[in-house]
Amino acid sequence: MDLDQLKFDSDGLIPAIAFDVDTNQVVMLGYMNAEAVQRTAETGIATYWSRSRQKFWVKGESSGHTQEVRWMRTDCDADTLLLGIKQNVAACHNGYFSCFYRELKDGVWEVVEERVFDPEDAYGR
Amino acid sequence: MDLDQLKFDSDGLIPAIAFDVDTNQVVMLGYMNAEAVQRTAETGIATYWSRSRQKFWVKGESSGHTQEVRWMRTDCDADTLLLGIKQNVAACHNGYFSCFYRELKDGVWEVVEERVFDPEDAYGR
Repeated sequence: MDLDQLKFDSDGLIPAIAFDVDTNQVVMLGYMNAEAVQRTAETGIATYWSRSRQKFWVKGESSGHTQEVRWMRTDCDADTLLLGIKQNVAACHNGYFSCFYRELKDGVWEVVEERVFDPEDAYGR
Repeated sequence: MDLDQLKFDSDGLIPAIAFDVDTNQVVMLGYMNAEAVQRTAETGIATYWSRSRQKFWVKGESSGHTQEVRWMRTDCDADTLLLGIKQNVAACHNGYFSCFYRELKDGVWEVVEERVFDPEDAYGR
């Protein structure tokens, strides 16, 4: 794979934007190292590198809220990935389809989405 | 503004995804420091921090290919911004509407968009 064309940062990571192709919504931004990109391409399921936990993170592995990858693009600088995905259930552990559920309105971040599940229920990211 | 809720990285930056609201396309990923976020919110024109040139970058200032900001969202971790924008002409200095004009196909990055302008023409990013 043309992986060597990608530019990873000093931590060996590249940001990956997850874009849901059914709803045309950006649902999250994650980070991948080279192996996460490889695993994502091979399995067709978005696999990130968790910076907080320092390990591979198959998004939705425990919750079932996986991201089926339809296509993978890169930008002119080859330092960002854009993934066209089908998001199962919801991307956000807070119960929203997209993690970007707050919008700046008159200087305040207001919730502008409806929850699609109750985050009080057991939910593994 | 609720800027103090945003989490900037160790370089004082936050990634900002530019999403064109007319075409539903992600057109680029840029970075902002706190003042760039403030300027963007105040002017309604996307203003980034150029990491390569280490200065403010009003996208399209010289080319006219500006991004008019319709809304600004943040994610659950408040460490990424999503900007709903109207992209004038094109986002990419290579002549494509979106910087994400290459897609991975059978292990090779293939150009999957048509150019909307000739990058050989004088063009200031």
